[in-house]
Amino acid sequence: MRKPYSIGIDIGGTNTVMGIVDTRGNILGTASIPTLRHSHVKQYLDELHTELSVMMERTDAIGKIHGIGVGAPGADRNGVIEYAENLPWEMPVRLAELISLRFGIPAKVTNDANAAAIGEMTYGVARGMSDFIMITLGTGVGSGIVADGKLLQGHNGLAGELGHAIVRPQNGRMCGCGRIGCLETYCSATGVARTAREFLHSTPLAPSILHDIAPEKLTSKDVYDAAMKGDSLAKEIFEFTGSMLGEALANFATFSDPEAFVLFGGLAKSGDLLLQPVKRAFEQHVISLWKGKVKILLSELKDADAALLGASAVGWTV
Amino acid sequence: MRKPYSIGIDIGGTNTVMGIVDTRGNILGTASIPTLRHSHVKQYLDELHTELSVMMERTDAIGKIHGIGVGAPGADRNGVIEYAENLPWEMPVRLAELISLRFGIPAKVTNDANAAAIGEMTYGVARGMSDFIMITLGTGVGSGIVADGKLLQGHNGLAGELGHAIVRPQNGRMCGCGRIGCLETYCSATGVARTAREFLHSTPLAPSILHDIAPEKLTSKDVYDAAMKGDSLAKEIFEFTGSMLGEALANFATFSDPEAFVLFGGLAKSGDLLLQPVKRAFEQHVISLWKGKVKILLSELKDADAALLGASAVGWTV
Repeated sequence: MRKPYSIGIDIGGTNTVMGIVDTRGNILGTASIPTLRHSHVKQYLDELHTELSVMMERTDAIGKIHGIGVGAPGADRNGVIEYAENLPWEMPVRLAELISLRFGIPAKVTNDANAAAIGEMTYGVARGMSDFIMITLGTGVGSGIVADGKLLQGHNGLAGELGHAIVRPQNGRMCGCGRIGCLETYCSATGVARTAREFLHSTPLAPSILHDIAPEKLTSKDVYDAAMKGDSLAKEIFEFTGSMLGEALANFATFSDPEAFVLFGGLAKSGDLLLQPVKRAFEQHVISLWKGKVKILLSELKDADAALLGASAVGWTV
Repeated sequence: MRKPYSIGIDIGGTNTVMGIVDTRGNILGTASIPTLRHSHVKQYLDELHTELSVMMERTDAIGKIHGIGVGAPGADRNGVIEYAENLPWEMPVRLAELISLRFGIPAKVTNDANAAAIGEMTYGVARGMSDFIMITLGTGVGSGIVADGKLLQGHNGLAGELGHAIVRPQNGRMCGCGRIGCLETYCSATGVARTAREFLHSTPLAPSILHDIAPEKLTSKDVYDAAMKGDSLAKEIFEFTGSMLGEALANFATFSDPEAFVLFGGLAKSGDLLLQPVKRAFEQHVISLWKGKVKILLSELKDADAALLGASAVGWTV
């Protein structure tokens, strides 16, 4: 019989959050440590081990852990981090192996968007689906692609970099990756702020409460708040953002023929403000084979727990 | 022990070609019947059965067939053809089941581009690869995506419609599918002829032997022949076509992180004329993660046998 609990570890740029989770996604206990306190990965793992040991004892989970799942930036398919901008340790870090040895429990490491996809499939809105695409709309845009019930990995473990799919090959926005017209430049939180600055600049006389905010300080949250107050320019910004995303999803459908797209992350919390134009643009742009057939859903995982749940879901797959 | 032979059946709009193939891709015997002779699928299968029985006897293959693979237009993941423009039979046709029952041998049906991908993986240039994308450049553009050693199917068995990925969302060409800017409108044989007509029309004074051909009669073969004779306008047309394809492949890489792209079909026979600009544009447009890392290869399967070999390769997977 499978052991009843999984450990999830989400390694963020600031904090590392860990927790013990049961098969239904109930969180028995959580703890967190600063990711950057130790410049040597060994000391970091020592602290992680201490915290988790205490938690396992407290929740009566010792000997009952099926596996450890880890969400970490830049992890390849073997659980090795070759390079991660925000982590202080000497690279490469063979993280899956190190954690597995340290805890005596099998461990698997994947990147954040992939963990989110597995989490959604295990506990969330994609339960029972074999083919779907998770789109994470945060500071950037990430993605995790599930095909035939398994995460698409690719030759180097880098599959699903859909934030850098080019949606405007001509006259597109400059992306941080050095290329032009990436999805991320339009449909991330920073993309929304960028759209707001463009719209405000090009229509200086359009009435909008967003004019009251200094352009360089404008955030996607400001645009959301304004839209919820009925500001029509702010609503137009969401309309534009959703249309760009829907058009991109229509193109992604030609690739893996998904049953659904699941939207996750800060922007996805905008609900219908984003979802309606996404759906409209998807139906308008998708090839007739898929018209009316592909679900576009918002994540059901609570934002605070989603990364942890995603990581713990990976723990079931070791 | 696995039986030594596989039967491949390629159902084309005009002829159905069948053959018996060994594990190395040697063809022991082939035959062909007209696809459209019978308006009832039962009679068609009777004739298929007669031809194959004779062939099996002649090649001493009775009792030695591992499976039957079929390449057919419009087949879904269960081997059912729901709709196919060029087939005369009453739809839907449960082709995999019908063939399997008729021959007493397990059968699997897939569409032509998928069969080509499996063929390339079994006998061709993608041997040993787990992650690659097959692009078929014919009258249209098709694709078959292999991920983790298996064909990507998708929720409805329709994965890999990359000919209808939109590469020019703005000011793109009208596609037969009713949308704008599909890859197929640029990088198919008909796309090349269309580019030629556009270039000839917009530069009426550019010296080119292509001016000697009536625009409506111009084919991609004419452009190829002219380019091989050194015609600079014709070379420019290939340069444009290859650039569009390379740019599209760079976008496709973000999806499944392939080890290679394999180009197949009429246009792929243009060799370096097409391959050089494809490679150049790919490296120019791909995100830095993949620069210099993804192979772009031409199919190694002989054109006349490729569809048959692809179908027979599917026969090994029953």
